[in-house]
Amino acid sequence: MIPTLPAMETPALAHWAHAMQRSVLRQMIAIVSRPGILSFAGGLPDPALFPATEYAAAVTNVLTADPKALQYGPPSAALKAHIVDLVAERGITCNADSIFISTGAQQMLDVFTRLFVNPGDLVILEENIYTGMQQALSPFQPHIVTVPTDLQSGINIGRIEQLLSNGARPAFFYVIPDGHNPLGVSMSLDKRYQLVALARQFQIPIIEDDPYGFLNYDGERLPTLRSLEPNWVFYTGSFSKILAPGLRLGWTIAPEWLIPKLTVVKEASDLETSALTQRAVAAYLDTGHLPTHLDLLRTTYRQRRDTMLVALEEHFPASARWTIPSGGMFIWVELDDTIDCADFLQLAIEQEQVAFIPGFAFAVKPGLSRNCLRLNFSNCSVTAIEDGIGRLGRVLQQYHH
Amino acid sequence: MIPTLPAMETPALAHWAHAMQRSVLRQMIAIVSRPGILSFAGGLPDPALFPATEYAAAVTNVLTADPKALQYGPPSAALKAHIVDLVAERGITCNADSIFISTGAQQMLDVFTRLFVNPGDLVILEENIYTGMQQALSPFQPHIVTVPTDLQSGINIGRIEQLLSNGARPAFFYVIPDGHNPLGVSMSLDKRYQLVALARQFQIPIIEDDPYGFLNYDGERLPTLRSLEPNWVFYTGSFSKILAPGLRLGWTIAPEWLIPKLTVVKEASDLETSALTQRAVAAYLDTGHLPTHLDLLRTTYRQRRDTMLVALEEHFPASARWTIPSGGMFIWVELDDTIDCADFLQLAIEQEQVAFIPGFAFAVKPGLSRNCLRLNFSNCSVTAIEDGIGRLGRVLQQYHH
Repeated sequence: MIPTLPAMETPALAHWAHAMQRSVLRQMIAIVSRPGILSFAGGLPDPALFPATEYAAAVTNVLTADPKALQYGPPSAALKAHIVDLVAERGITCNADSIFISTGAQQMLDVFTRLFVNPGDLVILEENIYTGMQQALSPFQPHIVTVPTDLQSGINIGRIEQLLSNGARPAFFYVIPDGHNPLGVSMSLDKRYQLVALARQFQIPIIEDDPYGFLNYDGERLPTLRSLEPNWVFYTGSFSKILAPGLRLGWTIAPEWLIPKLTVVKEASDLETSALTQRAVAAYLDTGHLPTHLDLLRTTYRQRRDTMLVALEEHFPASARWTIPSGGMFIWVELDDTIDCADFLQLAIEQEQVAFIPGFAFAVKPGLSRNCLRLNFSNCSVTAIEDGIGRLGRVLQQYHH
Repeated sequence: MIPTLPAMETPALAHWAHAMQRSVLRQMIAIVSRPGILSFAGGLPDPALFPATEYAAAVTNVLTADPKALQYGPPSAALKAHIVDLVAERGITCNADSIFISTGAQQMLDVFTRLFVNPGDLVILEENIYTGMQQALSPFQPHIVTVPTDLQSGINIGRIEQLLSNGARPAFFYVIPDGHNPLGVSMSLDKRYQLVALARQFQIPIIEDDPYGFLNYDGERLPTLRSLEPNWVFYTGSFSKILAPGLRLGWTIAPEWLIPKLTVVKEASDLETSALTQRAVAAYLDTGHLPTHLDLLRTTYRQRRDTMLVALEEHFPASARWTIPSGGMFIWVELDDTIDCADFLQLAIEQEQVAFIPGFAFAVKPGLSRNCLRLNFSNCSVTAIEDGIGRLGRVLQQYHH
């Protein structure tokens, strides 16, 4: 007879999970997604621009030709061939054996973290980064050291060099060199060279997260880190912002020796990425419509960015500063130090039914970026942008009287 | 000037990853997938039975009605409502708030492992289990204690009880009660009651992995563990075997308090499961074709199972034993102790161009199940099954002369 044990309501979670929290960003997006709210909060592409009809046709064509597209299957060679061509536009020369297909780019942040980070390891991060990377790191409860980011030139390389010289050895560097989320900044050319030089010298890999690299609005782009350094840069791309997020399809370009290791970690995570989605996207790319589609995205989002920048000049106080993004979907605003954007958001929603994400939702440590906010310009019409920024400006006037 | 560091060819992996290996199963499947091989190796449904045309129509209908189906989005309420109805057939009463949508069932094994297992924790496992669970556990380098499984009644509950009485406290139990992969056995009714009683008494959750529960061939089914115990059983289902694996769509039924925690871990992994896939599968289910489709699968696979069982009786040696599966896709064969199935597989491929998976590919510890093999019957015609089992029998005759 086994004795009855003391009552416990729920099973014991792993140690790290006791401190687990829903991402502040995700909570915020749920709060501000109420009907009637004019939202600059999400990080969403405009669904009116999705090639929905063409993609439906691609799915139908693939399934008509071969029902086995719904079977388990290896990564699509046809898709890899298209990705080789696509990343050439980002200055990257690679072959299909260096390409790894993933279930969106987020999966790669998770896979890289699993593969390179031990519990409690040191990581060097910008003060504000994409929350998905923070979530991927969370189970490892890393020791986080922050470096500041200049709103015109990107991450502070001098500070990184100083940390490395003092003996810091992070598992990797994580950067979004183009159209940074949440900051909107793109890294200067000098800093790109400096960062890959540090990566080489200290033999620390760089995860180059490039979801926005094809959404560039100001002519010639700076080279990707991967185009400067093939061995120490793992380049991660995504179809989420250039076709549609609902595909959940991304890719990584990594040294060939790494691909089998990525495969093992990914298999544990979800076995494989939908063979049907891979083949349907390859079929869509076969039609040759992507360049025209990218032109449409760039033209549309460029106009929205320009509209938002003009509206900020017109309606925001003189003490405010913001990034002028050459690409991506976001503008980062720093307000007067005395303004707490949690309060500002509450006023903006109550008084003007306009929403954004306060900067601290992206902060890797508590207390940072209280006076900052992220504005998304990709998923609102120019009229809504002019209107909404004006309404935010009205709320801000209360702080200055 | 920073001094040059000693050369290192590649970045340092996390500690656990040094012992990381590609799953033996996945390696084997790659080897035996050569053209001209008659394969009982994979765990594949028959693609000729996929509702490919209907699914393509569902995708088109969803995208025509609403291109936003390609946007980021919350889990589909329509899909959850269908899952509530679907699992009622497995004796499960639940509401939509207990349902969690996943990118295939594999993702849930990964999510549960992350949420409940600490590095080095004790886990109690059957000697041979689904390799995806082993891969999910691998980063945690658990201390594995094995229990035997009876080929007619399933996992040895007495042995589990003994371990628990001696103080063992695993993070969870992992079982496939119906159509076990790789063993083909279904757990007896007594053992189902005993296992959930132990789960309650010792407050240890059960992960009930049920990919094959709808593929039943012998009339009335035994109750799922979840139907016996709602609080301590986390039931995981999948559309991979009842519709198609290429969808990468599964679900879990868990206590409501657990759903937000699953959400956080899943978001870190892949943000969310394709909204388009969720809505397209819901649209397919709206048509009401699933019951007829399941009947077709059951009829087809039942005939193949019966054919394989008859062929084994006819062609395999008297010393061989095998499971008689009431569901699922596999038969497990135990040969004479003196036969090593690595050798047998090599002979079978060389002499007869027939493949299977040796049992040790599923063993959680080295040295187990050398004389065993797993045969898949779902993805071969009855003619191929009769022919292939005959050819395997011819190879086996060499061991008995």
